[in-house]
Amino acid sequence: MLHDLAVAEPAWSPRNPDFEARVRDNFARQGLMGLIGAELETVAAGRCVLGVGFRPALTQQHGYFHGGLIGTLADMAAGYAAFTLADADTSILTIEYKLNLLEPGQGERLLADARVMRGGKRVSVCQADVWALDGPRRTRCAVALATLMLLPGRSDHGPTAKPA
Amino acid sequence: MLHDLAVAEPAWSPRNPDFEARVRDNFARQGLMGLIGAELETVAAGRCVLGVGFRPALTQQHGYFHGGLIGTLADMAAGYAAFTLADADTSILTIEYKLNLLEPGQGERLLADARVMRGGKRVSVCQADVWALDGPRRTRCAVALATLMLLPGRSDHGPTAKPA
Amino acid sequence: MLHDLAVAEPAWSPRNPDFEARVRDNFARQGLMGLIGAELETVAAGRCVLGVGFRPALTQQHGYFHGGLIGTLADMAAGYAAFTLADADTSILTIEYKLNLLEPGQGERLLADARVMRGGKRVSVCQADVWALDGPRRTRCAVALATLMLLPGRSDHGPTAKPA
Amino acid sequence: MLHDLAVAEPAWSPRNPDFEARVRDNFARQGLMGLIGAELETVAAGRCVLGVGFRPALTQQHGYFHGGLIGTLADMAAGYAAFTLADADTSILTIEYKLNLLEPGQGERLLADARVMRGGKRVSVCQADVWALDGPRRTRCAVALATLMLLPGRSDHGPTAKPA
Repeated sequence: MLHDLAVAEPAWSPRNPDFEARVRDNFARQGLMGLIGAELETVAAGRCVLGVGFRPALTQQHGYFHGGLIGTLADMAAGYAAFTLADADTSILTIEYKLNLLEPGQGERLLADARVMRGGKRVSVCQADVWALDGPRRTRCAVALATLMLLPGRSDHGPTAKPA
Repeated sequence: MLHDLAVAEPAWSPRNPDFEARVRDNFARQGLMGLIGAELETVAAGRCVLGVGFRPALTQQHGYFHGGLIGTLADMAAGYAAFTLADADTSILTIEYKLNLLEPGQGERLLADARVMRGGKRVSVCQADVWALDGPRRTRCAVALATLMLLPGRSDHGPTAKPA
Repeated sequence: MLHDLAVAEPAWSPRNPDFEARVRDNFARQGLMGLIGAELETVAAGRCVLGVGFRPALTQQHGYFHGGLIGTLADMAAGYAAFTLADADTSILTIEYKLNLLEPGQGERLLADARVMRGGKRVSVCQADVWALDGPRRTRCAVALATLMLLPGRSDHGPTAKPA
Repeated sequence: MLHDLAVAEPAWSPRNPDFEARVRDNFARQGLMGLIGAELETVAAGRCVLGVGFRPALTQQHGYFHGGLIGTLADMAAGYAAFTLADADTSILTIEYKLNLLEPGQGERLLADARVMRGGKRVSVCQADVWALDGPRRTRCAVALATLMLLPGRSDHGPTAKPA
């Protein structure tokens, strides 16, 4: 018997209608995003896609996208996907993530596509797939599972956000 | 009864006496290491320490070292720690890693210190601790466990290294 | 712009037509599977579903399915999903896995549904979702990412299978 | 230059002097611990060691300790290590863990030794090493990193403990 346990994509209802502006404001304040040239491609309730174009400054020793860059994009996309579902007074923190590098990151563009798998009041879990776009080919080069903590009552503009 | 199960640090014997030159050559060919300004601080048998100084271009939204940078350094240090124990004709690949962010990366310098925990012919496992140096204070801001695969007979200078 | 990056389920071609018999033979030789009362529900190319019915002997302190049991089922299902794609002379080994516990494991039956995400000659990566069935309700209580190593030329009946 | 970044074992001060009784009470209520025959060997502030003796019912297909059992012990020991530092009115929950299987679990006894690496008010991180004792030999067969969440004001005896 073949079980039909396919996971229906949950339809998330954001608690803060201005979630996209909040994500974009946060993104603009991250020095590292500017250094690597990342772009926010999609911001939707429970989802975020980040992209970056190829440059030699983003490579590992074989001239492909660097694994550290792949992990950084996955982590960021996961954090923003969870952030879209947070209340307006709540900041968010990556607690941990795990990344499997599946194939070389070869191509002219990298996309990290993160979706909320569990969206809780205090703990969210996201999956992020990272794709390498190489002409007409699209290869999933990595997958990550990330755990995020939501911190109610802590402004995202405050001095810090550390886990209690 | 208190068990005494402390883990003695294993003393590794490198199979290739020129391991340090190989690590430094690989490091010099990674575009991303130049972009972020990482430095190879220590290369020893079964161990690698990478460092990077603070700059606004390396920050997240609160002005601390970015989690993606912390993960990148941990991953790289783990890979090089395992690489020091590889044969001269063997290249190495990160299969996966898991990173826990423990405290904010606050300070003037970040150090990722990786040690080989299991050094096999095909599979190595490393732990990497990431430290934030803030004046006299030293805070472990992250810990990672990484799994590396060794690929005998594949030059580190070849066109690619992907898992079979 | 909303990206359409949905992951098409790959259609796997098994290298060994007798994969199901091999999985069932392996399963029958595992003492722990008998102790917990696990059952092989589905074995298909690149997929495996394991189930177990509720008993008080499988609980944690609140009377739900124990997290250790959830992890065990996820790990086993992932290993068998990868095993369905192995050659007849190849054994398989879990290198590592990461498990997120999403919701309490509450219900009369637990199902671990694993699918191969990357099916390589030496390294496979599987995702396993664990579901709690509670009357008409079905809750995903955990998700795991597992990395498996394939060992060509090592019989699954030999004295051991350890990573090289 | 060889960095001296050895991690001093932190000396934890328990907030609840009766932490050992709480751990033992929780342990006694877990059906699965009885089924596998696990024993609480050490309970100290920020540390827990669990053991289990060899039986064929605990094996995988080669007659060694099963990986699922190894993961279960690691997860439990990590949870109890964190629990020793919790307030008396606080329950605890495993959010996620990652386990690397390093060597076969071969021997007459298995010990999971967990230590708190970060002990926070809401989030704790523990490392667990799992040892196989085989006559005079002691082999570290697995290592885990686990993230635990502390839930203040939720009795450990209540109907459930799920993340918010």
